[in-house]
Amino acid sequence: MADVITPRAKNYPQWYLDVVKEAGLAQNAEGVKGCMVIKPTGYAVWEKMQRSLDRLFKDTGHVNAYFPLFIPKSYFQKEEQMAEGFAKECAVVTHYRLRSCEGKIEVDPTAKLEEELIIRPTSETIIWRTYKDWVQSYRDLPLLINQWCNVVRWEMRTRLFLRTAEFLWQEGHTAHATQQEAEAETLQMVRVYQKFAEEFMAMPVLVGRKTEGQKFPGAVYTLCIEAMMQDGKALQAGTSHFLGQNFAKAFDVKFKNEQNKEEYAWATSWGVSTRLIGGLIMTHSDDNGLVVPPRLAPLHVVIVPLGKNDAERKPCIEAAEKLAKELRELPRDDFFGYEPISVKIDTMYDKQPGFRYAEYEVRGVPVRVEIGPKDIEKSACAVARRDVPGKEGKQFGIPLAGAAEHIAKLLRDIQQALYDRAKKFRDDRIVTANTLEEFQKLFPVEKEDEAGAEPLKFVYAHWDGTAATEDRVQKEYKATIRCLPFDGQKDKGKCIFTGKDSERRVVFARAY
Amino acid sequence: MADVITPRAKNYPQWYLDVVKEAGLAQNAEGVKGCMVIKPTGYAVWEKMQRSLDRLFKDTGHVNAYFPLFIPKSYFQKEEQMAEGFAKECAVVTHYRLRSCEGKIEVDPTAKLEEELIIRPTSETIIWRTYKDWVQSYRDLPLLINQWCNVVRWEMRTRLFLRTAEFLWQEGHTAHATQQEAEAETLQMVRVYQKFAEEFMAMPVLVGRKTEGQKFPGAVYTLCIEAMMQDGKALQAGTSHFLGQNFAKAFDVKFKNEQNKEEYAWATSWGVSTRLIGGLIMTHSDDNGLVVPPRLAPLHVVIVPLGKNDAERKPCIEAAEKLAKELRELPRDDFFGYEPISVKIDTMYDKQPGFRYAEYEVRGVPVRVEIGPKDIEKSACAVARRDVPGKEGKQFGIPLAGAAEHIAKLLRDIQQALYDRAKKFRDDRIVTANTLEEFQKLFPVEKEDEAGAEPLKFVYAHWDGTAATEDRVQKEYKATIRCLPFDGQKDKGKCIFTGKDSERRVVFARAY
Repeated sequence: MADVITPRAKNYPQWYLDVVKEAGLAQNAEGVKGCMVIKPTGYAVWEKMQRSLDRLFKDTGHVNAYFPLFIPKSYFQKEEQMAEGFAKECAVVTHYRLRSCEGKIEVDPTAKLEEELIIRPTSETIIWRTYKDWVQSYRDLPLLINQWCNVVRWEMRTRLFLRTAEFLWQEGHTAHATQQEAEAETLQMVRVYQKFAEEFMAMPVLVGRKTEGQKFPGAVYTLCIEAMMQDGKALQAGTSHFLGQNFAKAFDVKFKNEQNKEEYAWATSWGVSTRLIGGLIMTHSDDNGLVVPPRLAPLHVVIVPLGKNDAERKPCIEAAEKLAKELRELPRDDFFGYEPISVKIDTMYDKQPGFRYAEYEVRGVPVRVEIGPKDIEKSACAVARRDVPGKEGKQFGIPLAGAAEHIAKLLRDIQQALYDRAKKFRDDRIVTANTLEEFQKLFPVEKEDEAGAEPLKFVYAHWDGTAATEDRVQKEYKATIRCLPFDGQKDKGKCIFTGKDSERRVVFARAY
Repeated sequence: MADVITPRAKNYPQWYLDVVKEAGLAQNAEGVKGCMVIKPTGYAVWEKMQRSLDRLFKDTGHVNAYFPLFIPKSYFQKEEQMAEGFAKECAVVTHYRLRSCEGKIEVDPTAKLEEELIIRPTSETIIWRTYKDWVQSYRDLPLLINQWCNVVRWEMRTRLFLRTAEFLWQEGHTAHATQQEAEAETLQMVRVYQKFAEEFMAMPVLVGRKTEGQKFPGAVYTLCIEAMMQDGKALQAGTSHFLGQNFAKAFDVKFKNEQNKEEYAWATSWGVSTRLIGGLIMTHSDDNGLVVPPRLAPLHVVIVPLGKNDAERKPCIEAAEKLAKELRELPRDDFFGYEPISVKIDTMYDKQPGFRYAEYEVRGVPVRVEIGPKDIEKSACAVARRDVPGKEGKQFGIPLAGAAEHIAKLLRDIQQALYDRAKKFRDDRIVTANTLEEFQKLFPVEKEDEAGAEPLKFVYAHWDGTAATEDRVQKEYKATIRCLPFDGQKDKGKCIFTGKDSERRVVFARAY
């Protein structure tokens, strides 16, 4: 595949697009600027993500519901910060009918909506308007509701999965009787995201709080998980917002507390999106194509029967079928969400083995089993792991008896190995800058996407806590404050940009 | 609940709305006419439906993908019948930005789209535009793709689940190398819908072909499943369309066949929607509220510990917890989609038992277990089935040892009993009309929703095969031809409306 996929060292952004294309994950939609088609393999990864996250949400007491795609313009206006934050990227429905006019279809000018409808960019407003009807007493609280849906934010510069006009996501919206409970929920959900990122995506994350300048429009504060991609850039992978009583006040959601006094409800919202697929790709994949951690892989194992002709191939195919059956029938457990191990037997017999292997390598199948005539003689097979390409990752002479259990164990090992590798990569690139000079060297202005450029780093540095300094750093170095991490360096000092007092170090990075 | 839910015999349409409301399934959205909010219980039923259907789709070789919400107006125009069929109910996006003007949010007139975008009412056009890029050779076929998403059809008269401006559905879109294969797919998928309706929804259906007048705009022909609701009206519950080469021609989807000759691809599409939840309600529910077949029930079992005070209640709660654990830990199997049996222990100790029972009755929980102090003395419990309300459906003295297995078995029995009952109800109301007089009596013009009205019937009658007669019958009797069933009466005769020759009897009914 070396000729199809641009190596990372040569051009990282192009490498990313090549992997998305060659692994069959997604493509730009024709005719609808900025929208994407999520292709079957990409969607299968999203389905796995959905199932796993959904289970984590339900285990923490949440239920799913569905609210309308459309938001009346007037709702939007009720929460000022939100209106400001999203107005510039809203798709607006103004008419509800087409008509045929001289053989051409046109918008029917007589079917104009009295009030324009916004396609939801996020659903706080319509959901809190609904909560108004659901909440009268403290007994109606908490509401712990999540929604899986599509949202639209009209982006001008888009990149598959990372930034698209329409994307798929989940948005949790909870209502609580007390501030304390809502804040505990905000924290719980960012920890759920961390768990998902680390245990399912095998992607280590920093967990922390956003600055005022980076928080969600309408939030009191925003918690987030931030991951490091292989180019050293940060990806905001999930956010959890404490919304205070902002939306309760905007939509008049009051309840009688245990003392029979009226209060406004307290809110949180939290979300992750198909952007995670972009993060997954840029955490694990390599110059041969996609690498997917087994817990999110649509296909776990491909078995490739070899042989020069039908006679040679026949026993290999039989052994492959037996092994596939054994793998599928292994006891189901929580690791794979009580789904069977997914196995395919490759049948591209007219192609060279190398070609056949590469096909599954580019698509990121975690384990490949090869069964050739010589293996059959020894009742054995060869097992190759995707995360370690080449001979290094290949085990020869694995006995067919017990191979299913061996592979099931290997899938677990791969999951762990991917996490360990990504964590080492990231930890090696978290540094501290104590002076402006050090900081400048870490964020060179020119080199970013140049061929052979070293990956960037996450940089702990002192900051004076002002938006002005934050803006200045962003303009001069294209680096933003990713978060004030919960763990990590918390010593006081002096801002390296202004010399003013700094309460604590924060983490700077360039970001997607 | 008798005071909350209008009895069916008194006012069937009101009964339906009362059940939707009291069981917490859905409500009309505020501010967005014709849209609905699917509440947690309603959405949980939809999730169960999705999972079950999705498994059936995957077992027949289909994969999921996701295509854009927006369809360029020009795509819409490319297939004439489709444009005609859907133009009158299209939501149209014309702008992509709002702006703030003197403190008010308004549509930014400078951000007008060059080409208006239609919110998908169905996705044949955008998908076939994409298939154009995916199909070059017969080796690229078949494409067996399904999409789960929201669609919008601007309806003026809406009813929760049955007809709403936005609804959730799945739409399968397949491309094939031969007509024969596409037709086989069309048939296969209507049979998958039948299997889902009968085995999961416990809802018997007629399977057949729509008339020319009732087929999907853009289809060569449409197959369907039709169910009978408790008022004797028909509900079109799923459709599968053979689209011929209409969309391949509209979007120029050609491939090279094995003889290296260019051909247009053959298409099918098929879909079911949240409308099925309406069908589920009207097939099984009663004057006490919702009844859900166990395979689709979000909550299978509620255990109600009784007792006048804490001391009396304590051993009952302990027994309830033990039973709940046993139920949850029963071996998982295909019947419940490898999910554990879902159990809740009721804690409304300040309420009377009757109130507590009614709460779960109205929500349709299939099995209720009562554990009181006297039961504890006998190490037993009482088990009540929702499908047979009152004493008749209650078993006393079920030993706690083995109760979990007993209940698991009972859930299977209930699933079967619901199907048997619905089938008998329907079969008893499929009749034959040999004369116009008989037909007229079966579709009285006035009485339809009157208090105490007898359920309507499905009526086999001879029809001359013309659209004119079909239209006339619809106008005069509000009855439509539901389908030309695959099974059932196929004898030739004379049209009862015109006296002309009739190839076969067809099924007439009033419909939702």
